[in-house]
Amino acid sequence: MHSGTQFTQGLRLAMDNGPAWTVEAVRQARYHVISSDHLFSQDNLTLLTGCPDAPLRAGERRLLVIDKNVDALFGAQIREFFTFHGVEITVLSLRADEAVKHWDAVSQVVDAMNDFGIDRRREPVLAVGGGVLTDIVGFAASIYRRGTPYIRIPTTLIGLVDAGVGVKTGVNYASGKNRLGTYAPATATFLDRSFLRSLDLRHISNGLAEILKMALIRSQELFTLLETHGSAVRADRFQGTTGDLADAADRIIAEPIHLMLEELQPNLWESSLERCVDYGHTFSPTIEMHALPELLHGEAVVIDMALTTALATLRGNVSEEQADRVFTVIQALGLPLWNDALDDTSLLEHALRDTVRHRDGLQRLPLPLGIGRHCFVNDVAPSELRKAAWLLRSCAQELPHAGSAESLVSA
Amino acid sequence: MHSGTQFTQGLRLAMDNGPAWTVEAVRQARYHVISSDHLFSQDNLTLLTGCPDAPLRAGERRLLVIDKNVDALFGAQIREFFTFHGVEITVLSLRADEAVKHWDAVSQVVDAMNDFGIDRRREPVLAVGGGVLTDIVGFAASIYRRGTPYIRIPTTLIGLVDAGVGVKTGVNYASGKNRLGTYAPATATFLDRSFLRSLDLRHISNGLAEILKMALIRSQELFTLLETHGSAVRADRFQGTTGDLADAADRIIAEPIHLMLEELQPNLWESSLERCVDYGHTFSPTIEMHALPELLHGEAVVIDMALTTALATLRGNVSEEQADRVFTVIQALGLPLWNDALDDTSLLEHALRDTVRHRDGLQRLPLPLGIGRHCFVNDVAPSELRKAAWLLRSCAQELPHAGSAESLVSA
Ligand SMILES: NC(=O)c1ccc[n+]([C@@H]2O[C@H](COP(=O)([O-])OP(=O)(O)OC[C@H]3O[C@@H](n4cnc5c(N)ncnc54)[C@H](O)[C@@H]3O)[C@@H](O)[C@H]2O)c1
Ligand SMILES: NC(=O)c1ccc[n+]([C@@H]2O[C@H](COP(=O)([O-])OP(=O)(O)OC[C@H]3O[C@@H](n4cnc5c(N)ncnc54)[C@H](O)[C@@H]3O)[C@@H](O)[C@H]2O)c1
Repeated sequence: MHSGTQFTQGLRLAMDNGPAWTVEAVRQARYHVISSDHLFSQDNLTLLTGCPDAPLRAGERRLLVIDKNVDALFGAQIREFFTFHGVEITVLSLRADEAVKHWDAVSQVVDAMNDFGIDRRREPVLAVGGGVLTDIVGFAASIYRRGTPYIRIPTTLIGLVDAGVGVKTGVNYASGKNRLGTYAPATATFLDRSFLRSLDLRHISNGLAEILKMALIRSQELFTLLETHGSAVRADRFQGTTGDLADAADRIIAEPIHLMLEELQPNLWESSLERCVDYGHTFSPTIEMHALPELLHGEAVVIDMALTTALATLRGNVSEEQADRVFTVIQALGLPLWNDALDDTSLLEHALRDTVRHRDGLQRLPLPLGIGRHCFVNDVAPSELRKAAWLLRSCAQELPHAGSAESLVSA
Repeated sequence: MHSGTQFTQGLRLAMDNGPAWTVEAVRQARYHVISSDHLFSQDNLTLLTGCPDAPLRAGERRLLVIDKNVDALFGAQIREFFTFHGVEITVLSLRADEAVKHWDAVSQVVDAMNDFGIDRRREPVLAVGGGVLTDIVGFAASIYRRGTPYIRIPTTLIGLVDAGVGVKTGVNYASGKNRLGTYAPATATFLDRSFLRSLDLRHISNGLAEILKMALIRSQELFTLLETHGSAVRADRFQGTTGDLADAADRIIAEPIHLMLEELQPNLWESSLERCVDYGHTFSPTIEMHALPELLHGEAVVIDMALTTALATLRGNVSEEQADRVFTVIQALGLPLWNDALDDTSLLEHALRDTVRHRDGLQRLPLPLGIGRHCFVNDVAPSELRKAAWLLRSCAQELPHAGSAESLVSA
């Protein structure tokens, strides 16, 4: 056996009963997240030259997959942009909502890639839409010829601050949310908040829930920003119609992205199970499932955060005054504080057990410490959950807007 | 923005028009290839304790996916083995041949993983079968919850020396061979040549084609081994019924695996396009497609190698005497030298153009240099292919066994 050549570093051969090899290697990953408003204005060259790893030149062609709703709103402008710059695009306009986030949608994207005869080294697929669309296209691209590059252009707030900045792709399978998927970064994500002008307020709030999550666990400063400007920026749909609103909108988008990337970078493939970005995601899947289709994902997340804020208050980790501020901000952002699923302690216990199973035997529950910091705990008991739910219910009932349609409190 | 924390290494933030982030990270990969005969003898503990990264203890349970044909032959023994060692297995017996190597089969494996309620940190899926079975299961596992570990136990010669030792998974889609797939190493592959006792000779030859490939480009020594013992080891189905045959069989399996791993380790994700292990794989897809279902994959590969050996002879890179030895060994291993597809130069040209497209604009054709060494060339012309085909045809007709059923020469 010619062992001991130049590759001995990563290849080990042992001869015990028979030969046994161990292969070790590292894979480099790199991706870009680039902000630029009005991406499809003809004088904006960011899409063409803004990403060093994905230049796009006149005379080239691209496959573009776009959410059908987004196509209806922005499709004409997008087509004009590419025509103007001499890029030939083939468009697949895809229905993309949670109900169709399944293999069939992936298969449609694969068919389009086949028909296009995509060059997997030079022709990244462009994905334009919300988190559902970019998750579907990312998954399809990542398995096509074992990995074809793709580019994300998110058009929802969830897309801008969450689905667009990480490396996860996926679709639902049977009753399992994102059961099938890959870790496959887009070569680049281009962030353009001007898309949000047509997004309904409920989906704006949905994205604000994930922003609030980053504030609660990582940044007092971001929390204060939400407290001061969140409601107005929401009503303005992040369009920055005054200088102050523009400044606040920029920071409310950029700050959580930066915090998120700080958390993701050392743990891109989720080998560590203590992830503070999982805050709000312990009870929310159960709440979401229980309340389907009543609640959006961010709405379930915020109810989870309200519950765990109450729990942290009982433990003395969060003061009552801080909890009040949190609950007030949640309402000001048009998000719910309560869902009747919280009355069912056995449901919450079940959620906790499920989490332990997926987190290798421990709860590893991120809990807030005041506002802007967190710790992980492993000792939450069912009785404590029940008390936290009682506390939350009474807080929710005392708050001025509780029970209003806007706040979606269904107590 | 809280930049400059501990993660600055892998996270860069630039502020030009708007914030732009670059994220960089490396992912570690490690896997094991472990030889052990009679894996399912009750006193063989290799499957339980042989891989440090995948221990299997009494009281645990596993999902086992097995090729239906292999199940019929070895299923009872396999079940007894696990029962004896106190491991509860759930078996999915799957039809697994090229005709069913499609998404539907992946979906069946995913269903089984769902029903099993697999713990993706502790319960690797066991895949027992030929390359088709292990490619399907590997793909399913790699996308289940964005990556669930799996273990391969190949039962064909192709599985032992090729499909079982790399990191590729995949299934066919529409007319595209392995069009969908991932790079996802099995935690461990266990090699047990005793499975080959029931494999038909044609599939033994099919695996020998890939072994011959490694010999031609990397090892004069392995070639001599095939020249001396190949035919007898083939007839013995690698069972080692005499000491000499056992020794030769061991080396004819271990040597190409080692050479292959040396080639793969620095290029696991195929970022470099100059891969000598692609030898025999330039014209073979076209030949295979043209001659379907007449030819197995290894048979098409060997015809490609015969053609390119003739081409190298015309260039003076391989002597006529060396070419004769190569052609003689091909026949002795029960493999074909010729297929009428080679008469159609436009077909070969088409294959070459396709290769250039997939190899980023250059031919990057591995060509033999004598026996056991290779070079890459970019200047093969259609006229040269035509001459090589003529030369090969005349050589094939002169060889003693040419035209016999065994050699499958359809000239
Ligand atoms: N990959 C990740 O890391 C990650 C992170 C968070 C969420 N997600 C996934 O994202 C999905 C949720 O994404 P979402 O909240 O963007 O939902 P979505 O993609 O379903 O979009 C919401 C709705 O808004 C419409 N829409 C999109 N852009 C619009 C615009 N500019 N104007 C008007 N309407 C528009 C869509 O057609 C859809 O009806 C979930 O499936 C979730 O699993 C993934
Ligand atoms: N992933 C990789 O790196 C890689 C490398 C090479 C080939 N492959 C793939 O492998 C496949 C070919 O694999 P293969 O040649 O093993 O074919 P296969 O899996 O189709 O097996 C060949 C036949 O032998 C049967 N069989 C399997 N084990 C047997 C045994 N011990 N006794 C009797 N019969 C047995 C099977 O049921 C099948 O009918 C192709 O799909 C190819 O794409 C993958």
